[in-house]
Amino acid sequence: MVIQTKQCACRWILRHQHKLKQAARSCHLKVKEVLGVEDVSRPYEHEKVEPLPLAETFRYADLKTTLAEPHQLRLKPDVSELKFGQIFTDHMLKAFYHEALGGWQKPEIIPFENISLHPAAKVLHYAVELFEGLKAFRGVDGRVRVFRPDMNMHRMNLSAKTSGLPTFDSEEMLKCLKRLIAIDQEWVPHAEGSSLYIRPTLIGIDGTLGVAQSESALMFTILCPVGNYFSSGSDAVSLLADPTYARAWPGGCGDRKVGSNYGPTIRVQKKASKRGLQQVLWLYGDDHQVTEVGTMNIFMFYINEDGEKELVTPPLNGLILPGVTRASIIQMAQEWGDFRVVQRTITMNEIVLLLKENRLLEMFGSGTACIVSPIASISYLGNLLRIPTNEHSAPLFKKIRDQLYAIQYGHIKHPWGVLVDQP
Amino acid sequence: MVIQTKQCACRWILRHQHKLKQAARSCHLKVKEVLGVEDVSRPYEHEKVEPLPLAETFRYADLKTTLAEPHQLRLKPDVSELKFGQIFTDHMLKAFYHEALGGWQKPEIIPFENISLHPAAKVLHYAVELFEGLKAFRGVDGRVRVFRPDMNMHRMNLSAKTSGLPTFDSEEMLKCLKRLIAIDQEWVPHAEGSSLYIRPTLIGIDGTLGVAQSESALMFTILCPVGNYFSSGSDAVSLLADPTYARAWPGGCGDRKVGSNYGPTIRVQKKASKRGLQQVLWLYGDDHQVTEVGTMNIFMFYINEDGEKELVTPPLNGLILPGVTRASIIQMAQEWGDFRVVQRTITMNEIVLLLKENRLLEMFGSGTACIVSPIASISYLGNLLRIPTNEHSAPLFKKIRDQLYAIQYGHIKHPWGVLVDQP
Repeated sequence: MVIQTKQCACRWILRHQHKLKQAARSCHLKVKEVLGVEDVSRPYEHEKVEPLPLAETFRYADLKTTLAEPHQLRLKPDVSELKFGQIFTDHMLKAFYHEALGGWQKPEIIPFENISLHPAAKVLHYAVELFEGLKAFRGVDGRVRVFRPDMNMHRMNLSAKTSGLPTFDSEEMLKCLKRLIAIDQEWVPHAEGSSLYIRPTLIGIDGTLGVAQSESALMFTILCPVGNYFSSGSDAVSLLADPTYARAWPGGCGDRKVGSNYGPTIRVQKKASKRGLQQVLWLYGDDHQVTEVGTMNIFMFYINEDGEKELVTPPLNGLILPGVTRASIIQMAQEWGDFRVVQRTITMNEIVLLLKENRLLEMFGSGTACIVSPIASISYLGNLLRIPTNEHSAPLFKKIRDQLYAIQYGHIKHPWGVLVDQP
Repeated sequence: MVIQTKQCACRWILRHQHKLKQAARSCHLKVKEVLGVEDVSRPYEHEKVEPLPLAETFRYADLKTTLAEPHQLRLKPDVSELKFGQIFTDHMLKAFYHEALGGWQKPEIIPFENISLHPAAKVLHYAVELFEGLKAFRGVDGRVRVFRPDMNMHRMNLSAKTSGLPTFDSEEMLKCLKRLIAIDQEWVPHAEGSSLYIRPTLIGIDGTLGVAQSESALMFTILCPVGNYFSSGSDAVSLLADPTYARAWPGGCGDRKVGSNYGPTIRVQKKASKRGLQQVLWLYGDDHQVTEVGTMNIFMFYINEDGEKELVTPPLNGLILPGVTRASIIQMAQEWGDFRVVQRTITMNEIVLLLKENRLLEMFGSGTACIVSPIASISYLGNLLRIPTNEHSAPLFKKIRDQLYAIQYGHIKHPWGVLVDQP
């Protein structure tokens, strides 16, 4: 290619900017390879989950693809301008389920478009809906990886069972997802810290008003590029812990990723915002057990009564979403063996006591959106508890974040980073 | 009109069947008027509800109506064939809310059609949705009445506030609803026991993935004719009372008519059905408090420790939907003054004890769909408790049902029966 004028050169650079960035990042990887930087490639065990009797499924082999016409393609904004969940890619995945037609219909990849629903569709009245959230990352080698997608597919089937919605084969779904990501792969940002957020969704669409098992459903998946969650300075969050509200309760669905767990939280989040606090710390029970933070799982790092460092997170007792990041942190920390890792109930009383005795080191949330989110303070019953998470020289939450980033962006080879371009 | 042939006569009768029925019913009313049958026209006080600061609203004066073309009109099935929520009328009401455009847009009545949603619409992911259920009845005088619609509009605004959705002026909404019903008035069945079910719905439609207050929303209302809930013989229901599950909990949204309260109940209803039981009796807490039955409020009629008859229903403590039928039953029974009427907690232990001492007379559910639904049995911790609701010669639930029917079908003049054809 011959660059003829100054203007042409600018255009060429603008168009190929991401390739130049990529080249620089790949060099970095080569250096690491040569230097033999540590590689954690041991297989991690998944948390145990009950096996699902698989219903008939849609199949990747039946996938029909209709690519967007050139005029349908959207502009890709600069990574620095990306806000979470505002911009979507050019294509989406869709599969209908109709009991009357024998169950799952052939899946399709189509240009991104609106969904047309009967006004009585169950999803619009009775919250017959569930979703997943996972991410694809552009590695230093330029290849795209998804983080532990098998866990999301498994959880999605568990949510479907709970919601009276049809289940499907996780591997077939994953193959369809990989194909969708491959088609829209130029939407996976070429910058560390940013990624492509993947939102598989399953909704009940019967056009009848009974509160009942869905005979018709729609699985669809949309993708949106997201920037660096922690681009702006200090990232530690302030929390409202108000025992008046509960996110989940025994005998409910708090351990499933269903729509019902989210809508009712908005009013409490608004209350926190009004008081200048960033997120909600969800409590449960008369002893004010800590359950989740915002839409994340929660971890506490502290010095136990034996003087040992210990990482603790609430157990999967039905009130807690079985987070993929949560499970990954537990497994990683266990592998490291540097401190005890415990799943048990944490109460607000304990937090107050540990702070008084200078034994609380860090608290942080974990989730797909933010990976790890340090906690700076908790407003609780009129007191502002300052959490010293960000006051250590080498905090645990940063080590965890770095390790997860290293896997996600392909700095180290690891089975949790699943390549999109491999079957 | 001259009827020329036998075939013509049949056609004429078929086409004018409902008018003939109506004539017969109106005669019946005239007789009542002449005989001076009891008329409960005293105004009933509404249950107290906190006043709502009204946001800007859509207005009836702005209502734009587009009538369906003749080819869009649907066949009206025979009342005997109607199942709940399966058939819809020819028109629907719609009003969009867009914060960026100044809030509520002009409401519209349009031919019944699908709703087109952005795939990231909050309603599809986070259950940002709420609804109401009320009914229009064809009176013995041929005129159409809605039952206490002001209470539904008020509750809908309370649900909106809880859900981060925009509120509106109840009276403007009611005027729009009346217009919709008037346009589709031939869909209000001409048969006692049947009615036109009205389903106002409000959903969050922002096409962004954040769990947050909705900046765009859609209010829509659809109508469906429903047959007699109790057409087939004995109507008393069998219940599953399983303390493993809870419908609502303190600090949640159990007292609002939001989608989140319904989706998670489907799995428990399925469990009941598998065991041959018809509905779920929802319990709460270690003392197994009775909260609701299916999607209804619950009442118990019994002989108290002083040997007096007493009607009791759980209090509005946050776990209970403030039902319109519930409030109406309480007010009616208080007016009658025949027995004590109490709002207090009922536990399963109490039910077991009362049955043992032969002091439990009746249990029944109350709701818009069924009005009053007698309970025949409860399966509880391995025991089948037989409830003698249907074993009395003149049970209370029938007196209540008859009285509500009398108001709804215009047998007696009453402020609860709001005429659709009057402003």
